[in-house]
Amino acid sequence: MAVILLLSGPNLNLFGQREPDVYGSTTLDEMVDAARGALAKHGHDLEHVQSNHEGVLIDAIHAARGRCAGLIVNAGALTHYSYALADALATFGGVKVELHVSNPAAREAFRHVSVVAPVVTGTIVGFGADGYRLAAEAVAAALETGAT
Amino acid sequence: MAVILLLSGPNLNLFGQREPDVYGSTTLDEMVDAARGALAKHGHDLEHVQSNHEGVLIDAIHAARGRCAGLIVNAGALTHYSYALADALATFGGVKVELHVSNPAAREAFRHVSVVAPVVTGTIVGFGADGYRLAAEAVAAALETGAT
Amino acid sequence: MAVILLLSGPNLNLFGQREPDVYGSTTLDEMVDAARGALAKHGHDLEHVQSNHEGVLIDAIHAARGRCAGLIVNAGALTHYSYALADALATFGGVKVELHVSNPAAREAFRHVSVVAPVVTGTIVGFGADGYRLAAEAVAAALETGAT
Amino acid sequence: MAVILLLSGPNLNLFGQREPDVYGSTTLDEMVDAARGALAKHGHDLEHVQSNHEGVLIDAIHAARGRCAGLIVNAGALTHYSYALADALATFGGVKVELHVSNPAAREAFRHVSVVAPVVTGTIVGFGADGYRLAAEAVAAALETGAT
Amino acid sequence: MAVILLLSGPNLNLFGQREPDVYGSTTLDEMVDAARGALAKHGHDLEHVQSNHEGVLIDAIHAARGRCAGLIVNAGALTHYSYALADALATFGGVKVELHVSNPAAREAFRHVSVVAPVVTGTIVGFGADGYRLAAEAVAAALETGAT
Amino acid sequence: MAVILLLSGPNLNLFGQREPDVYGSTTLDEMVDAARGALAKHGHDLEHVQSNHEGVLIDAIHAARGRCAGLIVNAGALTHYSYALADALATFGGVKVELHVSNPAAREAFRHVSVVAPVVTGTIVGFGADGYRLAAEAVAAALETGAT
Amino acid sequence: MAVILLLSGPNLNLFGQREPDVYGSTTLDEMVDAARGALAKHGHDLEHVQSNHEGVLIDAIHAARGRCAGLIVNAGALTHYSYALADALATFGGVKVELHVSNPAAREAFRHVSVVAPVVTGTIVGFGADGYRLAAEAVAAALETGAT
Amino acid sequence: MAVILLLSGPNLNLFGQREPDVYGSTTLDEMVDAARGALAKHGHDLEHVQSNHEGVLIDAIHAARGRCAGLIVNAGALTHYSYALADALATFGGVKVELHVSNPAAREAFRHVSVVAPVVTGTIVGFGADGYRLAAEAVAAALETGAT
Amino acid sequence: MAVILLLSGPNLNLFGQREPDVYGSTTLDEMVDAARGALAKHGHDLEHVQSNHEGVLIDAIHAARGRCAGLIVNAGALTHYSYALADALATFGGVKVELHVSNPAAREAFRHVSVVAPVVTGTIVGFGADGYRLAAEAVAAALETGAT
Amino acid sequence: MAVILLLSGPNLNLFGQREPDVYGSTTLDEMVDAARGALAKHGHDLEHVQSNHEGVLIDAIHAARGRCAGLIVNAGALTHYSYALADALATFGGVKVELHVSNPAAREAFRHVSVVAPVVTGTIVGFGADGYRLAAEAVAAALETGAT
Amino acid sequence: MAVILLLSGPNLNLFGQREPDVYGSTTLDEMVDAARGALAKHGHDLEHVQSNHEGVLIDAIHAARGRCAGLIVNAGALTHYSYALADALATFGGVKVELHVSNPAAREAFRHVSVVAPVVTGTIVGFGADGYRLAAEAVAAALETGAT
Amino acid sequence: MAVILLLSGPNLNLFGQREPDVYGSTTLDEMVDAARGALAKHGHDLEHVQSNHEGVLIDAIHAARGRCAGLIVNAGALTHYSYALADALATFGGVKVELHVSNPAAREAFRHVSVVAPVVTGTIVGFGADGYRLAAEAVAAALETGAT
Repeated sequence: MAVILLLSGPNLNLFGQREPDVYGSTTLDEMVDAARGALAKHGHDLEHVQSNHEGVLIDAIHAARGRCAGLIVNAGALTHYSYALADALATFGGVKVELHVSNPAAREAFRHVSVVAPVVTGTIVGFGADGYRLAAEAVAAALETGAT
Repeated sequence: MAVILLLSGPNLNLFGQREPDVYGSTTLDEMVDAARGALAKHGHDLEHVQSNHEGVLIDAIHAARGRCAGLIVNAGALTHYSYALADALATFGGVKVELHVSNPAAREAFRHVSVVAPVVTGTIVGFGADGYRLAAEAVAAALETGAT
Repeated sequence: MAVILLLSGPNLNLFGQREPDVYGSTTLDEMVDAARGALAKHGHDLEHVQSNHEGVLIDAIHAARGRCAGLIVNAGALTHYSYALADALATFGGVKVELHVSNPAAREAFRHVSVVAPVVTGTIVGFGADGYRLAAEAVAAALETGAT
Repeated sequence: MAVILLLSGPNLNLFGQREPDVYGSTTLDEMVDAARGALAKHGHDLEHVQSNHEGVLIDAIHAARGRCAGLIVNAGALTHYSYALADALATFGGVKVELHVSNPAAREAFRHVSVVAPVVTGTIVGFGADGYRLAAEAVAAALETGAT
Repeated sequence: MAVILLLSGPNLNLFGQREPDVYGSTTLDEMVDAARGALAKHGHDLEHVQSNHEGVLIDAIHAARGRCAGLIVNAGALTHYSYALADALATFGGVKVELHVSNPAAREAFRHVSVVAPVVTGTIVGFGADGYRLAAEAVAAALETGAT
Repeated sequence: MAVILLLSGPNLNLFGQREPDVYGSTTLDEMVDAARGALAKHGHDLEHVQSNHEGVLIDAIHAARGRCAGLIVNAGALTHYSYALADALATFGGVKVELHVSNPAAREAFRHVSVVAPVVTGTIVGFGADGYRLAAEAVAAALETGAT
Repeated sequence: MAVILLLSGPNLNLFGQREPDVYGSTTLDEMVDAARGALAKHGHDLEHVQSNHEGVLIDAIHAARGRCAGLIVNAGALTHYSYALADALATFGGVKVELHVSNPAAREAFRHVSVVAPVVTGTIVGFGADGYRLAAEAVAAALETGAT
Repeated sequence: MAVILLLSGPNLNLFGQREPDVYGSTTLDEMVDAARGALAKHGHDLEHVQSNHEGVLIDAIHAARGRCAGLIVNAGALTHYSYALADALATFGGVKVELHVSNPAAREAFRHVSVVAPVVTGTIVGFGADGYRLAAEAVAAALETGAT
Repeated sequence: MAVILLLSGPNLNLFGQREPDVYGSTTLDEMVDAARGALAKHGHDLEHVQSNHEGVLIDAIHAARGRCAGLIVNAGALTHYSYALADALATFGGVKVELHVSNPAAREAFRHVSVVAPVVTGTIVGFGADGYRLAAEAVAAALETGAT
Repeated sequence: MAVILLLSGPNLNLFGQREPDVYGSTTLDEMVDAARGALAKHGHDLEHVQSNHEGVLIDAIHAARGRCAGLIVNAGALTHYSYALADALATFGGVKVELHVSNPAAREAFRHVSVVAPVVTGTIVGFGADGYRLAAEAVAAALETGAT
Repeated sequence: MAVILLLSGPNLNLFGQREPDVYGSTTLDEMVDAARGALAKHGHDLEHVQSNHEGVLIDAIHAARGRCAGLIVNAGALTHYSYALADALATFGGVKVELHVSNPAAREAFRHVSVVAPVVTGTIVGFGADGYRLAAEAVAAALETGAT
Repeated sequence: MAVILLLSGPNLNLFGQREPDVYGSTTLDEMVDAARGALAKHGHDLEHVQSNHEGVLIDAIHAARGRCAGLIVNAGALTHYSYALADALATFGGVKVELHVSNPAAREAFRHVSVVAPVVTGTIVGFGADGYRLAAEAVAAALETGAT
């Protein structure tokens, strides 16, 4: 019955076209569908916002406050410097999952620090396209057990 | 007779709702009204722009060049990484006041550095909601004494 | 049909007794059972080794080479300095999941770096006791899709 | 009715004589009078102590405990290394304002960190001689609203 | 016959008005015309996008994928922190030239690192307004020799 | 009546034989006897575990939980990197004293940081062989005053 | 028969009044008496100097050279930056004990480094008010064994 | 009519033979000819000095003072540590172009800093063999516009 | 006539099976035999201990004190953090050779520092399987010349 | 005819008694006499102030403003952290010589940085007791040539 | 049959005269003879170049390309900053051995990093004069096994 | 009767022509004459070597060993990175004076560290052209008192 917000940050609209050796060949739509399907089994809806604009992502988080029970965020490269996005996430009261398709710890040094990580409930990284489904499962489970 | 631009950055629209132990319970509108009232006593007008988009804030600074005599900016978390905002402020010729409601030096390490501070006239931090009024008073006084 | 190795590092035997505000009240046995149950649904077996000795964990990884199809490792504090454990994991050819019950990014600075992260397939952190089940699901899914 | 302590640290007795391009031509006495005048309008008294001795400043803070309702401190260069002064300020229970006449963020790197900032209520920097009056106004307002 | 995308980042619309001692008195339009003229001699078209919004610049890069043969980017202050812009550039397959009108190595420390530089073909800095023409020449030459 | 655990880490079994100019000529047994004697005067027993194995030391701390009222730990070189040992100590609820025979601050740089120090009650360093007796006295006194 | 100098640095005169959760409720006089009592049992006298002035503490160390056999110093916040105090201690030939009532390693980062530690015989931290007595015992024992 | 000095630093004599995947297959002579040709079109002469000796390069710069109107320098690995070369360049009054054939920002970390960059007019990197011609064009254009 | 101890640290038992592009295809037994053969020519015996347990390696060093004339140690990843192992080596009085099969300086950054290097006689790295024989030759030669 | 102020900082009163291997056996009085003698030959007077109190040294600099033509300062350990002393020196308009008897660059790391150096005319270090005379000669020469 | 180049960098001509406690009393000629003798047993010739000039060493490496099968380099202090020498070594295709007579890891901090190490086959340090012979043996063995 | 070697490093031949606001208008010959004159009064000869080649400077130091009683070195920019020059200086047994005409501490950050300073007797900086004479006086005095 809950609504879950899924946020996809800059350049993620290119999943399936961009550097397939790093990100695989699944498209963003397919990943979002997998997450939606997983949530639907638990009776939850998914709303998806993809944007290359930091401000649009922050606006979407604000709009979800008090309306969505959980949130999944793949912030793309904003992960590494957008303290404004982190502050927005900090204002959201529900379950929050940080998601990455690749494993940032195995890539360039600037990807080793996430400024978002300290304000989320948990993080799932490195499982490729399947990460979207796993994140959805994690949110659904957290909602059931009341964890935050 | 002067017009003063007041800029409020990402997440500041949530003042009063977000982390009240850090930011207090006064709303942004109330804070802006306090600043407007203080300026009105000196015969100045206040224009207010709040945005979660870095680009909107920069556009507003550009639009104020040559038209506004002073500027107050609470850049929120952009304070700590937006060199583009700092560059925009550097192009503005009038009095510039950096404002924070909380005391960043007493919070997380990333809030200890302001990339905006080197290009403003002065900074006022830590006085809660009253900071908006104090910043307005400081701008008005600087205009009167011709300080920059 | 596959055998999955689950490794629990130093102090994790105290789950349920130690700092419940950080780690919750579920015991390690209960967490392991949840992971075993999740894997059983996919027809896989789980072997569990808990040790406070770095060398025992490395020996267990060596023994799993060529015999186990996947591995889940909650290395405890060894996460932050045991390059020997990381080297051992690098010699293991199957799916590898790094797991933490708490969210290290929200704790002391020394927990912000994982020397193990660069050599695993993926990482799941912050979901409390449910992390064991999620990690098991992730391994099972990766085995099905052939991802590494 | 309250007594406010104003502390001026090393070299500030030279205001008006020292590097006028940085610090202006107003003397310290004139700045103190401006602060005293602003407080008088609110019915408060000002006590001023200037010293080039860290120990004298600490002694003055101790003597103000339980007797003064607020404190303004321009610690001069001690701002950047005197943890003893910071510890003394931490023992003072009233409103505390850190004050600088110039904008340290626009000067040498060693002036970018204030060891005093984490233990004060708020900070006012960069408004030249007018900073003393602004700090007095800020203290008076904080006393009225009961903020600390 | 090729189309080249020219991107101008935050505050560059003020060329000619802003800090002429640093950036000169040529306007952005004049610089763009010089680049367009240089490309026209080689039979290429130029598209120009100026924005103070990181997201608009990223969107423009996405739109150029598969359509433009080369790209010139003066990212302004985003050069120093926008990993999202760098990731967008990494998805673009043609010749990519990073351009700066001033010489960042001779300015503030934060301008000494470019997060964009590792993903471009080459960089041209310090030649003032003439840099736009030089960058256009460099792109045209690279297209002719097939270099990337 | 209480039982106190004394832990001696790697290489400390060589006290009296190893680098006598740094560590003196007293043997570990003699030091342990001095500590035992001091505790006996207060009616307490001492258990001593020396090991060159991090895991053995952690196991011993676990075994002391709920059974020993206090703990003295000379972790040897593990002091400087064993976060696993620190985490084990954090799970122990009684009085905890960190002990070093030499003065690490006067030796190599790597010995200047103790990862164990943040989780103990107090530290005693530099008093040579007499440190064991002093640590025992400190534990006994803390038990009497109920300090932790 | 020996005279021992006890030095108490800035703000320590406030023990018992200042932040009792950190420093306890025992006054400095009570702590000094405990140290004096412990030394008296060994036939030694104690001289105590408390000052908020670095120079007074240095003067006192100079005056003790050749006259006092040992020295206990709780330098307060000077611990973290007063190289002048450290140099003074280096000129003192007897037993030297650094003392802290709280455990600096468990507090703010600036308290993790002691510039005094490399030049003392030993250090005792974290035992609260009882630290003064323990330091006195340590000095007395060192005098008896001839350790330095 | 002007004479331009072209300096090629250590190992650049091996262009065409050394690591062709990084530096291409064009020889240094061919690159110098391309630069000479470009300058000849503007009526300028080129003098070329290649040396593996820092001192020879500095001597050449001194000899060019007051005689050459411009200078192009590919300092090779000296770029990253030869402050003596940078000081020599600072004494040269004409147009100065720093040149690199590869893109240092995309290579090892030590190549990310140029100690020469702060004292040159501009920098051209990453265009392979064509960089020599582009640098010559840039110098010629700067001489025509009188830029420095 | 002398006995030489050869220590092989964590994961080295997998030589020949693990990452052959880095470590080659020779097994540890073959390498040990080469070292034994080289020493036998000089009339020396070799004892070999391989362990994934830091404590076992330290115990072996202790057992070799006064009994073995020399020691060769390939500490594997312990090289980079085991100060306990370094301290153990420091207690050993004979010739000590640090050995690595690969060249750590050409690998990940964490392998660039050896905490063991400051306490050994010499180091041999990068010669692949032949390193074991070379190290044995070096020990034998040092014993003959009496070098330490 | 000029008056030169000579300042000696903390612990320098012990010259001749303190660490003679580092500072020699000449007393401070003897060094001051040597400087006075050198200045007398040029017709100048010397005033000497030694203090262990930072504030006394700053007061003395203030008192010398407009009255003394030159200043020699051996700030002792204050050299390394007293920004207040550096600020005081910056307010003094005459010739300023920083002096050290030992060579700080050959001692502990904290002595490698002088916060005073950027605001003096010149520095003389490492010549032992003769440094006082050399500094006096340097001041006298600078007064004659009008250098500052 | 092969020719091996041996390079000795700055100050190494003084072996036997310079700091014998660090470098021993063997002369460079004696060391070179030992290396030559070892190579002769394998049928190889040795060419030796000693120079205090970085450029001469680079020239010698260039001259050895395609003519020498192996190279031994003791770069002296150039080891720690000469990226030009490292780049030259990178262009040499045969076996390359870095050699040091002393153990740099046990000396000053600046000697702990070798900029040459990442581009050589292997490194031999700490064996005093015997290092030259060992390096020669290592080169000969590598040539026989075809290792690089 | 002694011979003193004066070394002038890269770019110092341009004194009087190069950046006169930094280095003054005196030529190197004039400075050398001043030093020679000062030494002649004490009966000493001066030999001067200026070179832009690090190797030439090192060769000159070697040639002075055992023949010259003292040495003055203005190493120019080599001061900041030439460990080879520092090593050469360390092999010279007489009085060694480091000299700079400007005050490096008041210039760019890279000039704040001298790698030569730790191995010289003393340093004289900031006295402009007069520094050469002062250095000569310092050497002469040191020879007379036998200081090193």
